[in-house]
Amino acid sequence: MNKAALYHRPESEFAYLYTKELMHIRLRADKDDIATVELVYGDPYMWKGVDNPDTQYWESRSIEMKKMLSTNISDFFEAEITVPTKRVDYLFVVTGVDGEKVIYTDQGLLDYDKTLVTKKYGAFRLPYFHETDRFHAPEWVKQTVWYQIFPERFANGDKSNDPEETKEWNPTETPERQDFYGGDLQGVINHLDHLTELGVNGIYFTPVFQAFSNHKYDTEDYLDIDKHFGDKEIFKKLVDEAHKRGIKVMLDAVFNHIGDTSAQWQDVLKYQQDSKFADWFHVNQWPATYTPTDDFENAENATYDTFAFTPHMPKLNTANPEVEAYLLKVADYWIREFDIDAWRLDVADEVDHTFWKKFRTTCDAAKKDFYILGEVWHSAQPWLVGDEFTAVMNYAYTDAIKDGFITKKISLEQMASNINTQLTLYRKQVNQMMFNVLDSHDTPRILTVAKNNKNLMKLVETFTYLQPGVPCIYYGDEYAVTGGMDPECRKCMPWEKEFQDENMFEFFKGLVAFRHEYQEILSDSDVEWKIVDNENGIVKFKRGDLKAVFNIGEKPAYFSAENIVFSNLIDGKNVLQYGFVIYK
Amino acid sequence: MNKAALYHRPESEFAYLYTKELMHIRLRADKDDIATVELVYGDPYMWKGVDNPDTQYWESRSIEMKKMLSTNISDFFEAEITVPTKRVDYLFVVTGVDGEKVIYTDQGLLDYDKTLVTKKYGAFRLPYFHETDRFHAPEWVKQTVWYQIFPERFANGDKSNDPEETKEWNPTETPERQDFYGGDLQGVINHLDHLTELGVNGIYFTPVFQAFSNHKYDTEDYLDIDKHFGDKEIFKKLVDEAHKRGIKVMLDAVFNHIGDTSAQWQDVLKYQQDSKFADWFHVNQWPATYTPTDDFENAENATYDTFAFTPHMPKLNTANPEVEAYLLKVADYWIREFDIDAWRLDVADEVDHTFWKKFRTTCDAAKKDFYILGEVWHSAQPWLVGDEFTAVMNYAYTDAIKDGFITKKISLEQMASNINTQLTLYRKQVNQMMFNVLDSHDTPRILTVAKNNKNLMKLVETFTYLQPGVPCIYYGDEYAVTGGMDPECRKCMPWEKEFQDENMFEFFKGLVAFRHEYQEILSDSDVEWKIVDNENGIVKFKRGDLKAVFNIGEKPAYFSAENIVFSNLIDGKNVLQYGFVIYK
Repeated sequence: MNKAALYHRPESEFAYLYTKELMHIRLRADKDDIATVELVYGDPYMWKGVDNPDTQYWESRSIEMKKMLSTNISDFFEAEITVPTKRVDYLFVVTGVDGEKVIYTDQGLLDYDKTLVTKKYGAFRLPYFHETDRFHAPEWVKQTVWYQIFPERFANGDKSNDPEETKEWNPTETPERQDFYGGDLQGVINHLDHLTELGVNGIYFTPVFQAFSNHKYDTEDYLDIDKHFGDKEIFKKLVDEAHKRGIKVMLDAVFNHIGDTSAQWQDVLKYQQDSKFADWFHVNQWPATYTPTDDFENAENATYDTFAFTPHMPKLNTANPEVEAYLLKVADYWIREFDIDAWRLDVADEVDHTFWKKFRTTCDAAKKDFYILGEVWHSAQPWLVGDEFTAVMNYAYTDAIKDGFITKKISLEQMASNINTQLTLYRKQVNQMMFNVLDSHDTPRILTVAKNNKNLMKLVETFTYLQPGVPCIYYGDEYAVTGGMDPECRKCMPWEKEFQDENMFEFFKGLVAFRHEYQEILSDSDVEWKIVDNENGIVKFKRGDLKAVFNIGEKPAYFSAENIVFSNLIDGKNVLQYGFVIYK
Repeated sequence: MNKAALYHRPESEFAYLYTKELMHIRLRADKDDIATVELVYGDPYMWKGVDNPDTQYWESRSIEMKKMLSTNISDFFEAEITVPTKRVDYLFVVTGVDGEKVIYTDQGLLDYDKTLVTKKYGAFRLPYFHETDRFHAPEWVKQTVWYQIFPERFANGDKSNDPEETKEWNPTETPERQDFYGGDLQGVINHLDHLTELGVNGIYFTPVFQAFSNHKYDTEDYLDIDKHFGDKEIFKKLVDEAHKRGIKVMLDAVFNHIGDTSAQWQDVLKYQQDSKFADWFHVNQWPATYTPTDDFENAENATYDTFAFTPHMPKLNTANPEVEAYLLKVADYWIREFDIDAWRLDVADEVDHTFWKKFRTTCDAAKKDFYILGEVWHSAQPWLVGDEFTAVMNYAYTDAIKDGFITKKISLEQMASNINTQLTLYRKQVNQMMFNVLDSHDTPRILTVAKNNKNLMKLVETFTYLQPGVPCIYYGDEYAVTGGMDPECRKCMPWEKEFQDENMFEFFKGLVAFRHEYQEILSDSDVEWKIVDNENGIVKFKRGDLKAVFNIGEKPAYFSAENIVFSNLIDGKNVLQYGFVIYK
């Protein structure tokens, strides 16, 4: 047995409360190396025969763990258990395919000996089932299909608030980095019916607060709506109208840094270390200054910390109690006064955990079942314990899908391995909350990644909607809008028929409807891989009683369906050429 | 290469800030399987040649990781790095002894390819060095040798506060479970010179608050000193006198449960679900009741949660805001009003993390560099991230020492393995804070475990003082007091010469002085194992420039010392029979 490969970690994604009373236990092992894993568990304090220390034994039960997800190097075993007294000690009895048998305890690995179990040698422990410590996954998030709006480019509903030098709305034009097209919140209100028709029920807005740029990630005032987008009254109306339609609203909080045109940073530039905001930032050496380069967003020799190396986004010192109080007030204000349902947190990983824990407490106090979505592109375990974020933007997950099906940087087997790696990084209820984006304002559009292959785009969208987590449509994808890395991916939304791909819109309507109909299965069931075959380009898996086949190969795939649920099959036969089919 | 054995976890004991600017990185691998590990690291946003996406490359540095601690199945590699911009991405390039070379990234393992490094494929990340998130290890704790006092048995300084039916002070008598001997706080004040002579500079008191039993773990009133121990005035005097001598004071907080004689629980028993304290507890079914058994501390069919199964310790509902506010007030009160330096937390693992995080915030606000010591007998990573405890009672660690040297349940090789397993569970600065107890009021006395072999007791004490973490003397050990499991280990302190072992006292004086003299090395340096030889009973290791040899075998061990620092050698020669020697 490959003993050095065994890994378990108490109170982590390897051992956690899934519901109030059900505990999930996982064990990592070498691939195809383990014959059986027996999980022995029970109340830590329950002993039989306590009158005789020599013969007394631990009152335990045992269950065989199931091999669930596998990566290219590891198998993950899982079990679901409960203990009425809400306390549990547990041990693993692991038997290798080579017949070797060991016991894996909190104190390490030992050769199997029955008395190690009966005496409960060095057991792992979940000391008490605390509902307050359990990662909480709001039901409404599972039921949501998101729609991402970049307000400057979605719709211009009010010409009177357009910036100077606003360009004419043109969905075929590739924007320059500093362009303005006049998109605003009234434009969103005007088009809510579009979202309703599409079937989405959550809007994720990139920033709407007063800022200098078109993208608004360089905030000037977190407590006001950008004057080119509208005002608080319009925003209130927008939230209310959205809520009437059953649509949730998520705003973007840019708390890592502030815009350099903000009053706070301007004060620092003016008064330097004498500024009352001097400690709001991370100035490493006075004066706060930098050497410009040809690139507007790149400085050299900045004497203060910034987002990346852009001098226009000085990093906020969130450990300063004044900054903390200010930002927490912002977090609270838009929830209490405008009833928003979620915050998306920009560059969330670069802000301290101490701050995010307080942020979480603030949001929870303001609204029940509030959703907090962090922008973290890498693995995100430290933020997803239950006291910071509800989810992260799941780029690591969707990258695997894109790299497997579209760019073919990795084989389909490696894709499945990478997907499973991500699924095993988090608690099951965390995976249900993940924000699965194939594209956004920060990436090329998915159709462009797919080199305009619309069938392939539909295939990866469908694949993504079938995964644990919640999907999101980036504005315009439903009309097959294209565009590379930003600013190219931020084109004006096409509102005229001639620029809209009606077929793609119908596809998305169908996909969203499918997602809503089968939401419970798609949120809660396990992913069961059946076939992953890079040579023939075929992937088949199950979610509950739903079966799905994806074929990007040149040969047909055969399947036997009683009931086809969603597909791009042309004739409904049991033969799938290039494309996808979901059936029962 | 055994790829399935590789393990790393960002933002954990595998990757953390040691100081404000130094980051420690660890990697777990199979034993003796890896030739080299190269850690490649740099600022996430620093690229060279950005004008050409094809040839642009990540501006990284690299360092070879050192093989540090090993267990019986794993080797741990470590490196210390820093990045001036306070952000770091990193990757491992791992070469096996078989020549296989892989790259270990945040997205899993891949065959080595140089472009994976130059393009920074899926790097692990520490997004920003936040001092506020770093685990903080107070310097004074490193400099402390603790002394544990069980007040009822340490000294009777005031006969007037003795309980009824107080027995006569008798250090040779084994106490019964419910006995009282009249020990009190005045008794401690009277004997502070004893502690000063011994050289200890911290007192850990088991509970001193109003309670029914002799051990006081069944609190009645957290805001008052037990009437048999004294009053607040005496306690204040005790803290002040201790502080004058440079002695810190740690109190025991029993927040998992309360005594059943407390006003709160009595109110529940009286009014049941109508009690204003009904939600202070976890009553699963009304009425709150139980079936007594022959064992006073064991109930059957209790309808409420308790500590273990004792009906006299109903578990507190720390998720109830009233309970939370009450207990946090207690935490704050004894710090602010009496200037205590530390809280030891009883049954700490069974209380929710949410509560402990608030507890930590409360203590930090009340006093700088406050020490929080949790009672956790198993692995304790979730509590030792930096926002809950400073340390735990390190039974898992000291058990390895006892099992290796004394009971010989495990070989010396297994002992070293277990010690290293524990050291690799935590950040380096956490290990420096650990409370290394060989015995306490909850275990048999170490001399009794050693079957009265005083040389062996001295050997394991010395070994323990040489480990990372802080040592603690259980009252009476310095006079070679014996006793099995409680109540036997809670005998009266011998204050008369005839019951004191003067030789053992001198040994401890020397050991404590040695610890103080070499504290910096013993706190901060790494443990370097040189010889672990169960067959001959010899262990040799280094801490900085200190070398230590322990011999429990029958043959002499030879060493070459320039300068003997501490030993039980009889003639100071370079030959060690049974015993220990520390030298340079």
